[in-house]
Amino acid sequence: MLSEDEIEFIHESSLKVLEQIGVEVMSAEGRELLLRAGATRGKADDVILIDRGMVEECLKTTRNSFKLHARNSDNTIEFGTDQICFAPVGSAPHSSDMDRGRRSGNHSDYRDFLRLAQQLNIIHLTSGYPVEPIDIHPSIRHIECLIDLAVLTDKVFHAYSLGRQRNLDALEIIKIARGLDDEQLSREPSLLTIINSNSPLRLDANMVTGIIEMSLRNQVVVLTPFTLSGAMAPVTLAGALTQQNAEVLSGLVISQLTSPGAPFVYGAFTSNVDMRSGAPAFGTPEYMKAALASGQLARRYRLPFRSSNTNAANSVDAQSAYESVFSLWGAINGHAHFILHAAGWMEGGLTASFEKFVMDADMLQMISEYMLPIPINEEEVGIDAMFQAGHGGHFFGTDHTQKRYRDAFYTPMISDWRNFETWSEAGSPQAMEHANTLYKALLAEYEEPPIDPAVREQLEDYRVRRIEQGGVKTDF
Amino acid sequence: MLSEDEIEFIHESSLKVLEQIGVEVMSAEGRELLLRAGATRGKADDVILIDRGMVEECLKTTRNSFKLHARNSDNTIEFGTDQICFAPVGSAPHSSDMDRGRRSGNHSDYRDFLRLAQQLNIIHLTSGYPVEPIDIHPSIRHIECLIDLAVLTDKVFHAYSLGRQRNLDALEIIKIARGLDDEQLSREPSLLTIINSNSPLRLDANMVTGIIEMSLRNQVVVLTPFTLSGAMAPVTLAGALTQQNAEVLSGLVISQLTSPGAPFVYGAFTSNVDMRSGAPAFGTPEYMKAALASGQLARRYRLPFRSSNTNAANSVDAQSAYESVFSLWGAINGHAHFILHAAGWMEGGLTASFEKFVMDADMLQMISEYMLPIPINEEEVGIDAMFQAGHGGHFFGTDHTQKRYRDAFYTPMISDWRNFETWSEAGSPQAMEHANTLYKALLAEYEEPPIDPAVREQLEDYRVRRIEQGGVKTDF
Repeated sequence: MLSEDEIEFIHESSLKVLEQIGVEVMSAEGRELLLRAGATRGKADDVILIDRGMVEECLKTTRNSFKLHARNSDNTIEFGTDQICFAPVGSAPHSSDMDRGRRSGNHSDYRDFLRLAQQLNIIHLTSGYPVEPIDIHPSIRHIECLIDLAVLTDKVFHAYSLGRQRNLDALEIIKIARGLDDEQLSREPSLLTIINSNSPLRLDANMVTGIIEMSLRNQVVVLTPFTLSGAMAPVTLAGALTQQNAEVLSGLVISQLTSPGAPFVYGAFTSNVDMRSGAPAFGTPEYMKAALASGQLARRYRLPFRSSNTNAANSVDAQSAYESVFSLWGAINGHAHFILHAAGWMEGGLTASFEKFVMDADMLQMISEYMLPIPINEEEVGIDAMFQAGHGGHFFGTDHTQKRYRDAFYTPMISDWRNFETWSEAGSPQAMEHANTLYKALLAEYEEPPIDPAVREQLEDYRVRRIEQGGVKTDF
Repeated sequence: MLSEDEIEFIHESSLKVLEQIGVEVMSAEGRELLLRAGATRGKADDVILIDRGMVEECLKTTRNSFKLHARNSDNTIEFGTDQICFAPVGSAPHSSDMDRGRRSGNHSDYRDFLRLAQQLNIIHLTSGYPVEPIDIHPSIRHIECLIDLAVLTDKVFHAYSLGRQRNLDALEIIKIARGLDDEQLSREPSLLTIINSNSPLRLDANMVTGIIEMSLRNQVVVLTPFTLSGAMAPVTLAGALTQQNAEVLSGLVISQLTSPGAPFVYGAFTSNVDMRSGAPAFGTPEYMKAALASGQLARRYRLPFRSSNTNAANSVDAQSAYESVFSLWGAINGHAHFILHAAGWMEGGLTASFEKFVMDADMLQMISEYMLPIPINEEEVGIDAMFQAGHGGHFFGTDHTQKRYRDAFYTPMISDWRNFETWSEAGSPQAMEHANTLYKALLAEYEEPPIDPAVREQLEDYRVRRIEQGGVKTDF
């Protein structure tokens, strides 16, 4: 997308932003950390100017790739390699399916989404609550949800950075789930957190605390600015990318000053708004371009790259599908290592759809299949089969076909390839109806992954104890 | 997708196929042409073995790129450059829209599709009848249809190769439409024909005649084997690509022996069948991989590359959209110069949908937008705007935004970005409903492109005369 010179221009411009405009750091601890390391105060007390020297120093200690350890070691993943890791939609306030429509996020739907994430091999981790269980009080929501993640799935999961105590609860829970002490946890990153800067150029207190607490313990920080071009970022992609880059680098500096070498991911979420209405748009040409350019910036810094599978549709229709595939096209061509919101995201993130979840899983499997090499050798070419089929003949019966037909091609979960007549007789089902059937079948087949009963008990004890203690105090 | 060695392996394997199995050439004229040039007869009389020397010689005379001239010179296009040329669905036996459902192809729908093709800038040419007007007798169908193409559109169009006289009628009509004599027509290619081999390894008489008649007059031949892996081609992509390549090369040899330097396009259509049912599948991972590999083969021969936008869905639902975008992803990443069936194709080509037509046009526009560079310079980056917005501020009001907001981003024709509540109040329209409204609006606004009244009259005279003569005799 961009030339090397253009990438350097974005890099240089973002350094200027950090030096001249700086970042508002709404945490005294964060400001002190930066000032101690040589940063200076800007015009306002909480604005910190970060010079390029400090950025360059911090870039020296980051890591190219690292593992994220799951409770089930088969599900341990690696960021920054050839592997592309897919996580479901995170943080949707609503859930929906065909049977019950759109509703407020709730614990029961939350748990069902985790079960789907566990059932589908193409989902490698969870990152945030697929839907926000609004029926659990925020003081204890993270306890219930983290215990669910540790029990209902055995894949890598994520902790929200919403205050120190919530980070600490997550760290305790992953330690119990994996049977680790502090030292082992630090050696084996097992938890990730998504840090969203409050664009433009502001890091709120919880986000700074999250970076520090997670980096201190060598857990993974994914810094993702929400640079919506035209709203929270300049109306040009050049500007939005520059600001995104400045914000990522500011978080990177806090992470590496806290703990040099702490695992850090370059997250990008640059999209644009509809300039007629101000509505956020996703899966747009601008989104795709930004994904490609962001991947280049991440590679400039030798950091793993996080992108997303997004759309702004209100129903699981053609729009939801083409915006999604456009997003994935940008993410995959941008060489993303970690794709969040990869399954189930609708309405610009406001709804998690059960049907979209399994439809996306099917699309992700197709993309995985697409990226496998084509074996090329004499046996595969099969000139014998062409002799056998003959001019104008048919290959179904050839030995070459008979040996291979069972797993020659990817078999989709959703696509309906029946001819029009047969399909009409079957009631003309849309893709969404197939997805509805599939998601329910997957839930019906779900079984909890095996867990050591002692670990299970410890987790339950932790849950009960922390809930009795009131979780994290809130003022409501 | 493939390494240089692997591309050579496919090339070499396809030469072996031409030498050892050969191609069934169901035209005496074609066989004589090949035999005169040194080819030999195979086991059966109409099977011709083509040796590698002949292929290599013919590859020397092909052209990298060439123009295709339209009646309106603004619509002249070029194959083989950075331009990607999009043509609508071709040859569907049915048409459909939401109002009247699925029906047999007819003249009225055919003309409406031409009007849409004319209305949409992203459609650069037509290639085949978007829908087959079954209500016109085949003896005169091509006359009516070609005159429509010359009058209702002023873009490049295509002639079916269904017998010499039909090719000749098309050549006469384009000469009248563009006011050319034979010599000028030969200097300015203005017509293309799609030649489908009758896979495996058979060229039927009409196809051979088409290659010869068009090449003789320096018009464009697009040779596209229908190598459906597992049915008309080996069950492996290596085999299907090898066979595809052999079939393309056999047509190339006929074209270049007829007229060295005649414009020739490498067409690829390799997809797979559903091995459970035998149903053809499109927009699959295998389809995408084949498109990438085919693009490499075309570049190996320095030929323009033709791909398609396909899907096997029965309704304009999420499946139709994701299979389409997957196809386009393969075509675009495969660097296709010419994308046929780019708008309106449904059901593996059995239906042309009015709604899908405009939805695809929107997607094609997004892809075009995606491929434009991101301007990177100080003015675009807009550090001033970041100063002006301030930490946590908003960019709507900045000068940088005000100067640019009108055309900062692509404005889609179909996507509905309203929030859920507003969208629900509006009756929860699906993408297909927006497409239905749009296609009718485009038809309502359609005006015939300007034409010299004398040319218009000559075209009408030709139409009346040839219909009076009975067109091309059929035995029914």
